[in-house]
Amino acid sequence: MPIYEAPIADFRFLLQEVFDYDEQVAGLPGLEDATMDVVLAVLEGAGEFVREVLLPINLPGDALGCTHGPDGVHTPKGYKEAYATYRNGGWPALAGDPAYGGQGLPTSLAIFVRELIASGSMSFGMYGGLSQGAYRALAAHGSDALKLAFLPHLIDGSWTGTMCMTEPECGSDLSHLRTRAVPASDGSYRITGTKIFISGGDHDLAENIVHLVLARLPDAPGGTRGISLFIVPKCLPLEQHGPLPTRSDNGVTCVSIEHKMGIRASATATLAFDDAQGWLIGEAHGGLRAMFTMMNSSRVGVAVQSVGVAEISYQNALHYAQERRQGRAPGAAHSANGERSDAIVLHPDVRKNLLTMKALVEGARALYVESAMALDIRVRHPDATARSDADGMLALMTPVLKSFISDCAVTVTNLGITIFGGHGYVHESGVEHWLRDARIVPLYEGTNAIQALDLVNRKLTLDGGKTVQAWLAEVAQQIQRNRDAPEIGALCAPLEVALGQLRSTTALMQDRVATDAVEAAAAASDYLRMFGLVALGAAWLRMAACAQAARGSEGGAFYRGKVKTARFYMQHLLPETERLQHGIRAGARAIMDVDPQEL
Amino acid sequence: MPIYEAPIADFRFLLQEVFDYDEQVAGLPGLEDATMDVVLAVLEGAGEFVREVLLPINLPGDALGCTHGPDGVHTPKGYKEAYATYRNGGWPALAGDPAYGGQGLPTSLAIFVRELIASGSMSFGMYGGLSQGAYRALAAHGSDALKLAFLPHLIDGSWTGTMCMTEPECGSDLSHLRTRAVPASDGSYRITGTKIFISGGDHDLAENIVHLVLARLPDAPGGTRGISLFIVPKCLPLEQHGPLPTRSDNGVTCVSIEHKMGIRASATATLAFDDAQGWLIGEAHGGLRAMFTMMNSSRVGVAVQSVGVAEISYQNALHYAQERRQGRAPGAAHSANGERSDAIVLHPDVRKNLLTMKALVEGARALYVESAMALDIRVRHPDATARSDADGMLALMTPVLKSFISDCAVTVTNLGITIFGGHGYVHESGVEHWLRDARIVPLYEGTNAIQALDLVNRKLTLDGGKTVQAWLAEVAQQIQRNRDAPEIGALCAPLEVALGQLRSTTALMQDRVATDAVEAAAAASDYLRMFGLVALGAAWLRMAACAQAARGSEGGAFYRGKVKTARFYMQHLLPETERLQHGIRAGARAIMDVDPQEL
Repeated sequence: MPIYEAPIADFRFLLQEVFDYDEQVAGLPGLEDATMDVVLAVLEGAGEFVREVLLPINLPGDALGCTHGPDGVHTPKGYKEAYATYRNGGWPALAGDPAYGGQGLPTSLAIFVRELIASGSMSFGMYGGLSQGAYRALAAHGSDALKLAFLPHLIDGSWTGTMCMTEPECGSDLSHLRTRAVPASDGSYRITGTKIFISGGDHDLAENIVHLVLARLPDAPGGTRGISLFIVPKCLPLEQHGPLPTRSDNGVTCVSIEHKMGIRASATATLAFDDAQGWLIGEAHGGLRAMFTMMNSSRVGVAVQSVGVAEISYQNALHYAQERRQGRAPGAAHSANGERSDAIVLHPDVRKNLLTMKALVEGARALYVESAMALDIRVRHPDATARSDADGMLALMTPVLKSFISDCAVTVTNLGITIFGGHGYVHESGVEHWLRDARIVPLYEGTNAIQALDLVNRKLTLDGGKTVQAWLAEVAQQIQRNRDAPEIGALCAPLEVALGQLRSTTALMQDRVATDAVEAAAAASDYLRMFGLVALGAAWLRMAACAQAARGSEGGAFYRGKVKTARFYMQHLLPETERLQHGIRAGARAIMDVDPQEL
Repeated sequence: MPIYEAPIADFRFLLQEVFDYDEQVAGLPGLEDATMDVVLAVLEGAGEFVREVLLPINLPGDALGCTHGPDGVHTPKGYKEAYATYRNGGWPALAGDPAYGGQGLPTSLAIFVRELIASGSMSFGMYGGLSQGAYRALAAHGSDALKLAFLPHLIDGSWTGTMCMTEPECGSDLSHLRTRAVPASDGSYRITGTKIFISGGDHDLAENIVHLVLARLPDAPGGTRGISLFIVPKCLPLEQHGPLPTRSDNGVTCVSIEHKMGIRASATATLAFDDAQGWLIGEAHGGLRAMFTMMNSSRVGVAVQSVGVAEISYQNALHYAQERRQGRAPGAAHSANGERSDAIVLHPDVRKNLLTMKALVEGARALYVESAMALDIRVRHPDATARSDADGMLALMTPVLKSFISDCAVTVTNLGITIFGGHGYVHESGVEHWLRDARIVPLYEGTNAIQALDLVNRKLTLDGGKTVQAWLAEVAQQIQRNRDAPEIGALCAPLEVALGQLRSTTALMQDRVATDAVEAAAAASDYLRMFGLVALGAAWLRMAACAQAARGSEGGAFYRGKVKTARFYMQHLLPETERLQHGIRAGARAIMDVDPQEL
């Protein structure tokens, strides 16, 4: 079975030494009790849950997958019991509103917990993650009556939630959405249509499932402006409790589930809604806006899942590299232990792959932790400017987090296999499934290509371009602050080069957005990647600067590792920005001048 | 079901217009009949076999996998019949020695056919590919008696072959190999030991299986110098024909098979040899040298498989991108067809991913085709210098082909999923399994990291460094020849930059090999990748120069596509050399200065 230790030390370092959590989050009104001690205790508990409950069912669950039969969808052996433990542990309630039974802890803390759960079982995490998304959309846009009817059940975990957007002919582009909603006499609506790729769309874990469904009202305008959001429970009446019936009595049928490359214990359903009763959330025709509330935090959530699956892949690769012996490593001291061969961690190529994994995983964690904190700040900060700054920064960073970090998860889990060699290709090693699980993250919640268009076309122009300028200026200041520091100063030069490239490329992209949509679109993914590389570099500079002071102290290996990984990142990974700049400057001609029949 | 058309046009272009196959290969003694017409007819036939026989069983075979029970290993439904068709079609005999029933066609042609087979089913291709490897080792090093006993069966496909190297504690490093061989009174040997990861180690396709086994004789020196090569049949007596018995009567037991990420219809067995009768191939203690005969062509074979799986992934991604409509593409002309949305091939990001796939697949094909031709030249050319040049170039290129192209296969099949979006994550789309299949190619036949050490430590010093200098000089001449050509001249500048980087980095690496093994090892993988990028660039320049003349002709789209893909490659992919140069120059300190406990 894979090993796993919750990365508590890294969280403590980030929250206490890098991001000043006690001040920034526990200092917010209503979160006074959520001090560092509380946060770390919760994470310790979550780590225990992951190790004891999730890890043992994860690999067998991947082999078994979910099954769909006449009596509905069954999750693999052990998932039902694990969900009961999760529910009884109060995990779904962490960041829930106390008015509906929640614990009122920070949203950021609930997000950190999701990283740990994703390490234990990405599939398991899907059910609770989607429920939190449904909770947030309903809490933000639902009427009081709807909140009262649904929120307590989502908070206590007796019901789970889904997000029903995609239809057979309508994936990235929602304008052709066909599902219909017809008003009923009692103020509710009747929903009819087919939705595909619905994570957690049916299962046997909870007592009811509530679907958040995008549909069109009869008088809806065409395109994306005519979409409304409805909440549609699998089972009625809403007062019912007890085990979830196999069949919906509300016209919601699970037609089939997908056989997927990974996250095979997460049921991905095709759902047919046939005159199903539902209720409108928010304004008529305002569904997309309401859904986006849910999707933005869901996109941060994808980054968090990505870090979770990458973290456990890294931990196991490191462990294996320390145990597995093979060949003689150049330069290693041999005679002492009398072994005939060296641990593969002593081989330079293996060390380099491990450093790459560490640089991406821990850098990505720093990025998402900062954004998760912004999710609390933008809602609770007493100062309107602080709220709006946090909101703007979050809007800017969301596509970067979603895409860049999900790509990192694929890279890291792929390297995890590389370190295990042929053994990593075998299911029982428990290594290859992390790549299969991770392969979904660049695809769902808006493909990474869509995120790149969002970054370029919408986020670079936020507040007239001031948001991105503020972010660039902050990185520049960070470089300025550290330029002359011993050890850390050397990290600044490569970051400054990359920042300069990003700055000029940003100006170029803003110009393209204004003048040439094709040029903007053709370069969007490369630009997002460049942005992500610089953001990760900035995160590593910040971490290294904080770590440098403590590197001689007790636990100094942790801090030295931070400084050295930062150096590795700047020298070996960050310079990828040059290739990206080349490609972006070269422009779209080499891409768009090729006719489809010439491919 | 996936679509597939054998890339006959590309082979014709490469063989006729780029590499002058009729002169270079069909001009060799003994290959006079293997003209272009013959070659293309054989490839047409192979394409038909792939489409009609292999494609229908491939995806179901991935779902079913091989099974292992008391009555041995069973391949998935349809594989037995497909193998019979393969055998009856004479495919195993293509390049076999006519003295033993072979068709005497070029080795290169047999290799091209393997690309097509890998497109149809990488799993299926494993059985025949390993048999060809066994054939080559035996043909090169076996006694006449052994050749007479075994070769006819390998040539007619009634028997298949394996390569038994890896043991539980002995993967990349063979020096700790434990399997023992004891001389028997009749001149044969008794083999005892356990071998793991044996592709085709047991199955139900053929009438016998012959294992090429590395083992130690009683008087063997330690380390890799004490290893001998034996041929060990599953069943005795050798005169037997008819269906393969479930159980070996020669002490060869299939203990288990692996549950793998991909190539699930290829049985990967753990074999226990218990006093099994075998015969020595080549010299006592000379087994590694004999095995390397087999491994070098096997490594080229891995590049060929890689292109095969990448090719079909590309074909299907392109097809899907032309059919699937989603959203509005910037700059596309809409009104004409009245459709509400555009084919995704019109979206710049999708076009860019398709171009990346095309650039890698077709560039890689050009690289391996040239090397496959060298396999014939080095054996058959009447001029000793020509033979030795071909041999040296092949030795230099083998690790580059194996590693760089296998990495390309992972990149391409991964992009194939990206283009299909969420649909690509679903098994039934037939897309995701290509990534799972392709993920083995960087791992087996010597991991890519091992290949990189081979390139740096052994191949850069070949012939005192002259081999690599000759190759670099040839790329420089190619640039020189095309510098002033219209359209093509523009491709030369980026290639010249990259070549300059490779040239100076090569000198740096040669210096490191001589003075600092750690520095050499730490940079080896990056150096190999840089080499591969430049080699692909040179291949694209050469193809573009050949295509440029014909771009206005009938079938001009094919030629224009070549020129434009070359341009895309130079502008968007080749500049990755800069990051690699950065990392290599920065040196090993950022890698090796990190203690394992700081990771």
